[in-house]
Amino acid sequence: MKFGLDVLGGDYAPDATIDGAVEALAEIGENNRIVLLGPEPLIVEALRKRNISPDRFDISHQPDCIAMDEKPLKALAEKPDSGMVAGLRMLAKGELDAFASAGNSGALLAGAVTIVKCLPGVLRPCTCAWVPQEDSDAYSLLVDIGTTPDAKPEVMLQFGIIGSVYSKYILGHKNPRVALMNVGTEDGKGNLQCQASFPLLKACPHINFAGNLEPRDLFKNKAEVFVADGFVGNVLIKIIETFQQMMRKSGCKSPLFDRLNYEIYGGSPILGVNAPVILGHGISSPRAIKNMLVQSKRMCEEGVVDMLRQVTF
Amino acid sequence: MKFGLDVLGGDYAPDATIDGAVEALAEIGENNRIVLLGPEPLIVEALRKRNISPDRFDISHQPDCIAMDEKPLKALAEKPDSGMVAGLRMLAKGELDAFASAGNSGALLAGAVTIVKCLPGVLRPCTCAWVPQEDSDAYSLLVDIGTTPDAKPEVMLQFGIIGSVYSKYILGHKNPRVALMNVGTEDGKGNLQCQASFPLLKACPHINFAGNLEPRDLFKNKAEVFVADGFVGNVLIKIIETFQQMMRKSGCKSPLFDRLNYEIYGGSPILGVNAPVILGHGISSPRAIKNMLVQSKRMCEEGVVDMLRQVTF
Repeated sequence: MKFGLDVLGGDYAPDATIDGAVEALAEIGENNRIVLLGPEPLIVEALRKRNISPDRFDISHQPDCIAMDEKPLKALAEKPDSGMVAGLRMLAKGELDAFASAGNSGALLAGAVTIVKCLPGVLRPCTCAWVPQEDSDAYSLLVDIGTTPDAKPEVMLQFGIIGSVYSKYILGHKNPRVALMNVGTEDGKGNLQCQASFPLLKACPHINFAGNLEPRDLFKNKAEVFVADGFVGNVLIKIIETFQQMMRKSGCKSPLFDRLNYEIYGGSPILGVNAPVILGHGISSPRAIKNMLVQSKRMCEEGVVDMLRQVTF
Repeated sequence: MKFGLDVLGGDYAPDATIDGAVEALAEIGENNRIVLLGPEPLIVEALRKRNISPDRFDISHQPDCIAMDEKPLKALAEKPDSGMVAGLRMLAKGELDAFASAGNSGALLAGAVTIVKCLPGVLRPCTCAWVPQEDSDAYSLLVDIGTTPDAKPEVMLQFGIIGSVYSKYILGHKNPRVALMNVGTEDGKGNLQCQASFPLLKACPHINFAGNLEPRDLFKNKAEVFVADGFVGNVLIKIIETFQQMMRKSGCKSPLFDRLNYEIYGGSPILGVNAPVILGHGISSPRAIKNMLVQSKRMCEEGVVDMLRQVTF
């Protein structure tokens, strides 16, 4: 299989992306190839400096680059020779099996929808974060974390279904409990969106619905999938990151918080599109980049997209 | 002045409420009285056990009690002789200057709106939390924290105005910066609600609008008032509480987190109604109860409700 990486994507590119790709080599296996998409001379030079033979990678020469602050749709239209656009196009044509980028996230999302396109019936794609659980090695999933800030109840339902499939195949939960992230646990709690989403989730035969849960339940082994709209999910992720930074600054240590780290899984797949696109954090470290490639491989091996394709949305 | 307290309100009532009321005596001053609303024999006995003369309080005999899990509207209608209903009625009639309860919060909210009633022009009341700021002794305000989960843009604007007045008179900020809690700082960011609220806040002459801020800015001295709808605000408050508990469990210490404690201010006033109603946390400790009474006094002395009454909403 072939896993594409956007070499110029991310705040610390190309050093972090090249280092991450080199680190990933050992885990990707003999039969798979990492395809580095970016300016070939720069890639070759960066590998030489690290005493790595360029032969260990496929290189797809893409001289252009979408900057972190460019307007997504304009950048996608004007920069076909960027690693991001070229990667998404190769993925859509089947020339890649997965594509990962820590670059402009708005552009990657827009590109995933316009170039790779949503699976039949999927209204909106979603992204997710792994949330470590107390007193176990397990991770639960928070979905969506920012892709769709205004999610209608039908979209919230799809997040639950998509999250459930991902949880099953990537996080290893046989029958994941899907909960609605709410401000109270009783039926009927929450804002209008939650009140309208609840009966759809409850009636859905594709998921194991666990009802309403609260933010305090996020780490407590009460559900394997937490459904939120992209606004609430993003607020949660951002305040969690803030707390982690404050804790680090205070010299606090906690094994749970150490596992609450996107570097462990590298980034979030953009779920609901026709092929695995992995969206990385702008500040991705080499470890995060490596794990984006490892997650690319796992998404392909487990056939998550094919499993989602079999769902009637 | 007379500050009412619902003696049977709260998970640890009446011990916590009586202890808190006794602690508050020293701070309430000679010219003010605390009015204890609840079953008189129980109150007198509780005070005697503490060697406190019942003369130091006014006692309003209310034999009934609204339990924590009762349906708010039904309980309000059926229990006129509860401390909560009696307190709100006395407040509405001017027989009390403020009323505080750590009891059934849904009932207190519904009672504040139906008995004390909203100020002219106020669409929905709101509640708020004090948020300590890094590298200063200051507190900022998060408003709303749960009262109005579905807040229209006009309501979000009112939260900004109300929060600004409270911030000025209670938290001592001369010209409080009012920010919209969002998932990005650029204009136009966020969900439809934020996008529609932004121009209303920006155009409002009554506030010093600071634009969009993110959860990471909550502790960073970037604004004195953060406006969120009651769903997002409640999610934030609940995940913050969760983190505090997890930190305590891990033995982590942080001066900032120590100040992130509702006991310091006791509870949230229900802002936007015709008189000060202070809503306490169900788990209120004596310290929290004491500070609810102290906040009752400050709300009255600073004339916050009168200041709000002068705003043309």
